[in-house]
Amino acid sequence: MKLIKLEPGLKYDGSQIKPMWAFQSLGVKGSSIVSWIGPMNVQPDELIDYEDVGLEIKSDEMIHFIIEHFDAQPADMRLCYHRQRILIMIVQDLLQEIGIKTHRKGDDLYCDEGKLSVSVATCSASSMKIHFAMNLTSQGTPKKVKTVGLLECSTELDIDEISKLPDKISKTYKDEIQDIEEDIAKTRVF
Amino acid sequence: MKLIKLEPGLKYDGSQIKPMWAFQSLGVKGSSIVSWIGPMNVQPDELIDYEDVGLEIKSDEMIHFIIEHFDAQPADMRLCYHRQRILIMIVQDLLQEIGIKTHRKGDDLYCDEGKLSVSVATCSASSMKIHFAMNLTSQGTPKKVKTVGLLECSTELDIDEISKLPDKISKTYKDEIQDIEEDIAKTRVF
Amino acid sequence: MKLIKLEPGLKYDGSQIKPMWAFQSLGVKGSSIVSWIGPMNVQPDELIDYEDVGLEIKSDEMIHFIIEHFDAQPADMRLCYHRQRILIMIVQDLLQEIGIKTHRKGDDLYCDEGKLSVSVATCSASSMKIHFAMNLTSQGTPKKVKTVGLLECSTELDIDEISKLPDKISKTYKDEIQDIEEDIAKTRVF
Amino acid sequence: MKLIKLEPGLKYDGSQIKPMWAFQSLGVKGSSIVSWIGPMNVQPDELIDYEDVGLEIKSDEMIHFIIEHFDAQPADMRLCYHRQRILIMIVQDLLQEIGIKTHRKGDDLYCDEGKLSVSVATCSASSMKIHFAMNLTSQGTPKKVKTVGLLECSTELDIDEISKLPDKISKTYKDEIQDIEEDIAKTRVF
Amino acid sequence: MKLIKLEPGLKYDGSQIKPMWAFQSLGVKGSSIVSWIGPMNVQPDELIDYEDVGLEIKSDEMIHFIIEHFDAQPADMRLCYHRQRILIMIVQDLLQEIGIKTHRKGDDLYCDEGKLSVSVATCSASSMKIHFAMNLTSQGTPKKVKTVGLLECSTELDIDEISKLPDKISKTYKDEIQDIEEDIAKTRVF
Amino acid sequence: MKLIKLEPGLKYDGSQIKPMWAFQSLGVKGSSIVSWIGPMNVQPDELIDYEDVGLEIKSDEMIHFIIEHFDAQPADMRLCYHRQRILIMIVQDLLQEIGIKTHRKGDDLYCDEGKLSVSVATCSASSMKIHFAMNLTSQGTPKKVKTVGLLECSTELDIDEISKLPDKISKTYKDEIQDIEEDIAKTRVF
Repeated sequence: MKLIKLEPGLKYDGSQIKPMWAFQSLGVKGSSIVSWIGPMNVQPDELIDYEDVGLEIKSDEMIHFIIEHFDAQPADMRLCYHRQRILIMIVQDLLQEIGIKTHRKGDDLYCDEGKLSVSVATCSASSMKIHFAMNLTSQGTPKKVKTVGLLECSTELDIDEISKLPDKISKTYKDEIQDIEEDIAKTRVF
Repeated sequence: MKLIKLEPGLKYDGSQIKPMWAFQSLGVKGSSIVSWIGPMNVQPDELIDYEDVGLEIKSDEMIHFIIEHFDAQPADMRLCYHRQRILIMIVQDLLQEIGIKTHRKGDDLYCDEGKLSVSVATCSASSMKIHFAMNLTSQGTPKKVKTVGLLECSTELDIDEISKLPDKISKTYKDEIQDIEEDIAKTRVF
Repeated sequence: MKLIKLEPGLKYDGSQIKPMWAFQSLGVKGSSIVSWIGPMNVQPDELIDYEDVGLEIKSDEMIHFIIEHFDAQPADMRLCYHRQRILIMIVQDLLQEIGIKTHRKGDDLYCDEGKLSVSVATCSASSMKIHFAMNLTSQGTPKKVKTVGLLECSTELDIDEISKLPDKISKTYKDEIQDIEEDIAKTRVF
Repeated sequence: MKLIKLEPGLKYDGSQIKPMWAFQSLGVKGSSIVSWIGPMNVQPDELIDYEDVGLEIKSDEMIHFIIEHFDAQPADMRLCYHRQRILIMIVQDLLQEIGIKTHRKGDDLYCDEGKLSVSVATCSASSMKIHFAMNLTSQGTPKKVKTVGLLECSTELDIDEISKLPDKISKTYKDEIQDIEEDIAKTRVF
Repeated sequence: MKLIKLEPGLKYDGSQIKPMWAFQSLGVKGSSIVSWIGPMNVQPDELIDYEDVGLEIKSDEMIHFIIEHFDAQPADMRLCYHRQRILIMIVQDLLQEIGIKTHRKGDDLYCDEGKLSVSVATCSASSMKIHFAMNLTSQGTPKKVKTVGLLECSTELDIDEISKLPDKISKTYKDEIQDIEEDIAKTRVF
Repeated sequence: MKLIKLEPGLKYDGSQIKPMWAFQSLGVKGSSIVSWIGPMNVQPDELIDYEDVGLEIKSDEMIHFIIEHFDAQPADMRLCYHRQRILIMIVQDLLQEIGIKTHRKGDDLYCDEGKLSVSVATCSASSMKIHFAMNLTSQGTPKKVKTVGLLECSTELDIDEISKLPDKISKTYKDEIQDIEEDIAKTRVF
């Protein structure tokens, strides 16, 4: 699984959730986790979650992760959503380590009452995709939803820690998936 | 998914990880999560984790969970280990809510340096099984490993909270799996 | 599996066979069986069965069933067509109970020489869909095919029995699928 | 799928449900349906249905079918039980054609109150197996269960029709499975 | 698996790789291998291999094979690419038998330095597709790539042998796949 | 995929085909290909190919390969046999490069009329296994079969080339499987 960190600035518009985006846009072949900081404004025809139809999905500055897995063939939506949950629980752990306490409802993270993150998972016949993003600030987020950014979650935040987050999250997630594979390879089955 | 809570006392000897144990021993048909408090002493020929060969796996008093899933056919070891991780991260969250801070390495939970839990997952062609158990105290645990029990993790522990743990864990896990299924049913695929 | 019965009148135009139709149109999340009475006129670009290309698929009044299953991940066309056959054999049984004798060729039901029903199954990566519909009368059906409606199959038909059919079919199908799941959970595998 | 009809006499003792029985005992390679007339007496350690533990499963004279499918890899218990249901519904149809009216509960057929048949399905990692058998008479069946044989279901039975049953059932089942495969190959997916 | 040989002349434009092409264009239902001699000019929007974007994929005269498999449900891209490799290694063997020595890199065949063949595999939810084609001459091939045709690979080529190639390749491939299925049916699993 | 080369001498007795052998005996975790030179004498109760029942399977000196794959979950016998064929075709290619011409029937290699190799594949729920071995000489092989060893296939054999074979085969096989995975990751699906 390749770890890619992009320069800040790429706008997440929903097209990045499409299978093979990393290969077609970045030349990254195989399973990967791509992270970057940038705005989000999802186009209606790029919506993946049918519950989001008609909603604004936008923010001025977020930490984004786009994950693609090719290991399970054919791709398996159920496995993909399990991985999404594992990713988000890893994020929650790492945030707590730097003093940001969140709670989770399904695939959403909250600081107090404020919605901190967005996430969706999907697949084609051959790959599984996950998008997860956290607001850095609540600027540019939809008015109808109470939102919050990482920088607003804690008063004594170390900016340096925030900047290390994307790499730490990517690496921890990659290690977890690898660790699961190793567990399979030492387990007796019936 | 059925939630079953047994009377305290059943010894976990490794036989409970076998597929269909809940049906054969308890008459519980279908996916289930069974919890109870009891000792553990795994017989060598019941070992599932080949890395445990030659080790003692025992404790005088633990909270046990045995989970069986029949939803994925054929059963999928990879999905099973993802669910194991989700279970353990849920446990970690719920422990923290009652003031017990743990850290996780793979499928093991630790309080400080002490190993708090054991876990294994396995499958047959038709079902996926998970065993997870936490020491209540470190009594009766192997001498070669530094272990700890829940009651030793915190000085200001509320026994009442501990007693509520099994049900809370079972219910939260069940809800999470159900929540994932509902997410699948609202997601556009490619 | 949710059982939904719609008010009469919805025209089946082929769009209802699309994955997630029940969620997008009716807000029904998860596996479901939706039934209603209404006309049918399948648009050419909504055709699922490539053998139907160029044919008229229409009728003025039919009992419709739209089934969606999310249990098998990834969705499995083979399993889906087995379920379609089971549905149709269930229908045949229930029709016979109220005195309507039919015979079956593949996924079509006939009264004597008249074609009584239409059906198709399909899937996306994440769900399996079945449409099955029976003519109430042969009005509005294609002229090139000899068709028949339920009300024309028997001279001594009890209208009350016909009105109970959709619910009975839906419930019997749901019970059968559930029964199969329970059988899996009590079966030794090798 | 090969159709094999054995000479009468082989006792079904449960060993025939094991994967590869047709190859090891009869030299039949690949998917097959084997039928024969003979007694049954299932040994306790050959039990497949855990609900049958402790029960007598025997009869002096039955029509037996042993089916093995290798098409789905890995083998799928869910698909296997769907096929079992289809087989039994086919049997029911063919019985009715010769004047024997039965009703079905799950995978059991009844004439009036008498249990006519036994059936079980199972699988290994690579094949799916079904056993289905109908009593010809109720002789030698367990006393604790009200049973019936085909020859006792109807007063005006044509023995000649009974003797044609095994071949008709095998052929109709084979054709149905083949028909499903052909339906897959003409279906648009999403 | 049906073997179909078309009259020479059909241009491969990429549309033939689409699932169900053999059924929709030729009325061939089920798994098949279709071969013919004809030109190739792949339209950009019919590209399957994202690495080919922007490249010309054309040739004046090639031996084409289009394979579709419906046996694995859901279709499996990994299995499909394994079959593609097996096909190409079979071609290599059969070419060598008639004195044409090639070497293989992934799914490409070369005579000396010249690229002899093109190939791609893909799938939908329900079928797996392979296209493989070899230049007869290098006429009409892209100028940016060093290419070669079968007729240019050897100085002492028997045209009669070339004309027998399509049938031999199709039959050998079909036999190999069938042989694998038979091996499954005689293998003990754990 | 790990490449392991053992010291000469280990006798292949059939136990090495069991899932997890590499982990339990060698401590190798995950997918691997293990090669060594040693004798073979398969114990009857370790037979995997039911057609071999009653046959002697032995040789004094062979090059052995034991492959285990954990990538496909659940393990897939069909994929496993495709990989076995690919392995054997790779061996055939590499033998030819050093002047040893063989022909292949299914999973057997022959020099002229002499059987050069043995092979079998199998799986558990979680891993796929392949054993392939070639005689170095025909010493110690069963008398009822005409066999041959690599050293007897050619008069002008370079012993140095033979000694390089195991590594070359292992590496080429590993690269091929990796290459297939990369092809999946650049392919458009429908």
